[in-house]
Amino acid sequence: MHAGPSTLNAVPQFRDLPTETLAEIESISTIEDIATGQLVCRQGEAPQYLFFVLSGQIAMTSTAPDGTTAVVEVIHPVGDFVLGSVMTGLPYLQTGHAVTRSRLLRIEADKLRALISRENSLSWAFLCSMSRDYRNLIRQIRDLKVRTAAQRLGCYLLARVPDPSAASAEIRLPFEKGLLAARLGCRQENLSRAFAALRELGVETRGARVTLNDIPRLTAYAMPDYLNDPELAAGPVATIRKAS
Amino acid sequence: MHAGPSTLNAVPQFRDLPTETLAEIESISTIEDIATGQLVCRQGEAPQYLFFVLSGQIAMTSTAPDGTTAVVEVIHPVGDFVLGSVMTGLPYLQTGHAVTRSRLLRIEADKLRALISRENSLSWAFLCSMSRDYRNLIRQIRDLKVRTAAQRLGCYLLARVPDPSAASAEIRLPFEKGLLAARLGCRQENLSRAFAALRELGVETRGARVTLNDIPRLTAYAMPDYLNDPELAAGPVATIRKAS
Repeated sequence: MHAGPSTLNAVPQFRDLPTETLAEIESISTIEDIATGQLVCRQGEAPQYLFFVLSGQIAMTSTAPDGTTAVVEVIHPVGDFVLGSVMTGLPYLQTGHAVTRSRLLRIEADKLRALISRENSLSWAFLCSMSRDYRNLIRQIRDLKVRTAAQRLGCYLLARVPDPSAASAEIRLPFEKGLLAARLGCRQENLSRAFAALRELGVETRGARVTLNDIPRLTAYAMPDYLNDPELAAGPVATIRKAS
Repeated sequence: MHAGPSTLNAVPQFRDLPTETLAEIESISTIEDIATGQLVCRQGEAPQYLFFVLSGQIAMTSTAPDGTTAVVEVIHPVGDFVLGSVMTGLPYLQTGHAVTRSRLLRIEADKLRALISRENSLSWAFLCSMSRDYRNLIRQIRDLKVRTAAQRLGCYLLARVPDPSAASAEIRLPFEKGLLAARLGCRQENLSRAFAALRELGVETRGARVTLNDIPRLTAYAMPDYLNDPELAAGPVATIRKAS
C-alpha cells in the first residue's frame, strides 16, 4: 500500500524534515499490514527495508550459534528497527515477528541509505533517533548486569504504571509470559519464581492483569532507573514507547 | 594539548571527511593524557565533550539507583564514547575511568553538535559509526540473555585469539579480574567459578596469562558469535577494537 504524507507526518523522527525530503521518502515507502506471528525480517539476510511500527508490536529476537534465542526488545509505535543494519549494509542481526496484528511503514534500504548520504536533515534525524535508542540499550545492559530477574520484572511492571507516585495501580501485560520472560532475559520458570517473589511485595497476577498493591514497596525493592535518571524522571510511561 | 591534523587523520570515523570539516573539528579538539584510574566523565553530568580513545582503555560504568554498578563496556582505540549523550544533549548515562594510562581526543560537545547539524559528511560518518556500535550492544544483550557466565567468559577469551582455527593459544587478559567480572556481568566469585568450569575444557590461568589448550572444545562449549555472524566471521580480533 502506498504511504501518504499523513502517514509520514505521524513519524516523530521525520517531524523536522523539509517537504522535498519527505516527498522523496514517500516515493520509496510502502505500508504493510501483518498478521500476528508473521515474519517481518530474518537474521542473517541482507537489509531490504527500514521499518517503522505504526501500530501493533514487533518482537526482535536474535539467535546465538547454539540455537538459543533471545528477545532483544519489543518495538512499539512509532519505533524503528534494523536501522543499524540498513546503515552499514550488513545482514540483519535480529529476526522480527509480529506479536499482535501490526501496521508497518517500510522504506527501501538501499535508496534510503543513498538519500541519507546526501540529505543532512535526514542523517541528523536518524542520528538523534539512534542516540536515544542507543541509550536505551545501555540501560538494558546495565539492567541485565546488576539486577536479579525479580528486580527486572519489578522495574518492567513499574514502567507500565502511568503515575508511579500512586500507592497502587492495575496494569495489563502487553504480551504473553513466554515473550515477557525472553524479553527480561530469564527462563519461563524463573519468571514464575520472580512473580512469586514479588507477591510478597503486593504484586498480584490474574492472566495478563497485574495489580500492584504497594507501589512504594515495589519501588524500594526493584529500584527502577527513573529514580536516578533525569531523562526518565518525567515519568516512565512517556519513555517506554521505544524502550519497551 | 592541541590536536593536529595527523591525530584527526588517525581516527577512522573521520577518514572520508572533507579537509574543511576536519579543520573545523581540529579547532574544537584537544588531546588529554590521563593516568590510570583517572575520571574522564561522570554519569548524570551534562555532556561537555565527545571522546575518542587514541591509546589505552576506558571503562564505562553505569550505576543503578541502588548504587550497584555495571561495567557496560571497555573502550579501546579508536573507539568513541558518550556520542548518544552529545547528540541528545542529555546527561551522561555512564561514568568513564581510565583502566590504563590513556590518551584521549576530546571534542567540545555543543560546538560538535552544531557542526554535525550542518555538515552532512559528519552526521553520515557518526551515523555509520554508531550503527556498528549499536550492533555490538545488541550482541552483548543477546550474550547476557542466552549464555551462562562460563560461556560468556569462553566467548570473551576466544575473541582474543588471533587465529581461532588454531588448536591452542596463549593470551593476556587486558585488565584485572574484578573489571572482567563486571564487564561480563557477573560477581567476582562467579568469574572464579566460570574459570574453574573452563579448566576442564583446557583453559589454564596464571595471573593475567591465559592458555587455551583446546580451542575446538572451548568453541563447541561457548559457541561464540562469529560462528553464525557474517560480520564477525572475518576473525574475531578485527572486531574487538570497539566491541571490547
